[in-house]
Amino acid sequence: MQKRNLCGGSLIVNYPSVTIENAVNELSKLPGIGKKSALRFALFLLKSRVEEVEKLSTAIIDLKNKTVFCSHCHNISDTEICNICSSPRRDKSLVCVVEDVRDVLAIENTNQFFGTYHVLGGVISPLEGISPQSLTIGSLLEKVKGGTIKELILALSSTMEGDTTAFYIAKKMKEFGVKITTIARGIPVGGELEFTDEITLGRSIIKRVEFN
Amino acid sequence: MQKRNLCGGSLIVNYPSVTIENAVNELSKLPGIGKKSALRFALFLLKSRVEEVEKLSTAIIDLKNKTVFCSHCHNISDTEICNICSSPRRDKSLVCVVEDVRDVLAIENTNQFFGTYHVLGGVISPLEGISPQSLTIGSLLEKVKGGTIKELILALSSTMEGDTTAFYIAKKMKEFGVKITTIARGIPVGGELEFTDEITLGRSIIKRVEFN
Repeated sequence: MQKRNLCGGSLIVNYPSVTIENAVNELSKLPGIGKKSALRFALFLLKSRVEEVEKLSTAIIDLKNKTVFCSHCHNISDTEICNICSSPRRDKSLVCVVEDVRDVLAIENTNQFFGTYHVLGGVISPLEGISPQSLTIGSLLEKVKGGTIKELILALSSTMEGDTTAFYIAKKMKEFGVKITTIARGIPVGGELEFTDEITLGRSIIKRVEFN
Repeated sequence: MQKRNLCGGSLIVNYPSVTIENAVNELSKLPGIGKKSALRFALFLLKSRVEEVEKLSTAIIDLKNKTVFCSHCHNISDTEICNICSSPRRDKSLVCVVEDVRDVLAIENTNQFFGTYHVLGGVISPLEGISPQSLTIGSLLEKVKGGTIKELILALSSTMEGDTTAFYIAKKMKEFGVKITTIARGIPVGGELEFTDEITLGRSIIKRVEFN
């Protein structure tokens, strides 16, 4: 039996205007956005005031024209040195190594970290053609050689690629006498034992800490 | 027990750049898009090539600058008269009355309708302050008075507001001798009887048609 909603199909063939079609095509390139959502956005924008639409259009193009990567930590910034690297209240000797900008935002939101960051721009993944050379590991090595860094916190995803990258960095940096740590793995705050996977639970028993 | 993922909170406080913050704020105004998705879009655009971002930005602003509403049917168009109204292959005496542009697209996609449209721009809803005067019913009345329209197909949603609007239009147009029909209500193609709501099923029995 055919179970197809005739109006809910994903292909919209005849757009009433080339402008709409063009906008739908461009909007549907955004991650996770299909033609249907793109059309919803386009019709929403069509109903919005022209100033609002201009603000969105400018904000988008400004992303490419006004944003740079901090020359020190490779985080996104409006200025050559980002506001975290240039802040006098941040501990420059404590560097948290993360995969990308989203991780910086996530850690910043915890309000628990007062060091600086180093954004790798990805993790080593031979399958996707990402070698150590395409990441900012060289620049991290230069900073470590400089001698101002006391501790590197490796805050990478707990995946094969993340672990590989962590091992690679640890091996490279060891000879310069820098302390290398990694963020704690274990059961999430609020998580229940019975729903935790065996590997996490097993590791959390092996890596148990003093109760205080 | 607190069940909150610390990284998954909806509030992102410290953006690394004003440009990013601005883009996230503007993108999160799109329907159904929150700050998290907006950030995902912003980071995606940041990684895209500048030409791609310019294309999106231009497509968005073109929506307001290049799109007009067809002066005849109020559908979206690039020209004063839309390509449906100006097509010689379309039956101008058969007019399908719909709520908005999305309905035109949905009906066009069926490839079953060869008349023209009239887009109301909404349905009568006293609660939301939408009166008959804020819709394009006046313009429809003028067309009907003109005498070229033989049949009006009311293709409105089967809601209280949709039904109210249909009754209002039918009452207004009746005296000009135009035939007024409404799209068939019933069990969707591919729908199963046992999962159909009672009202639809009841109406589909009362409004049964000849088997052919």
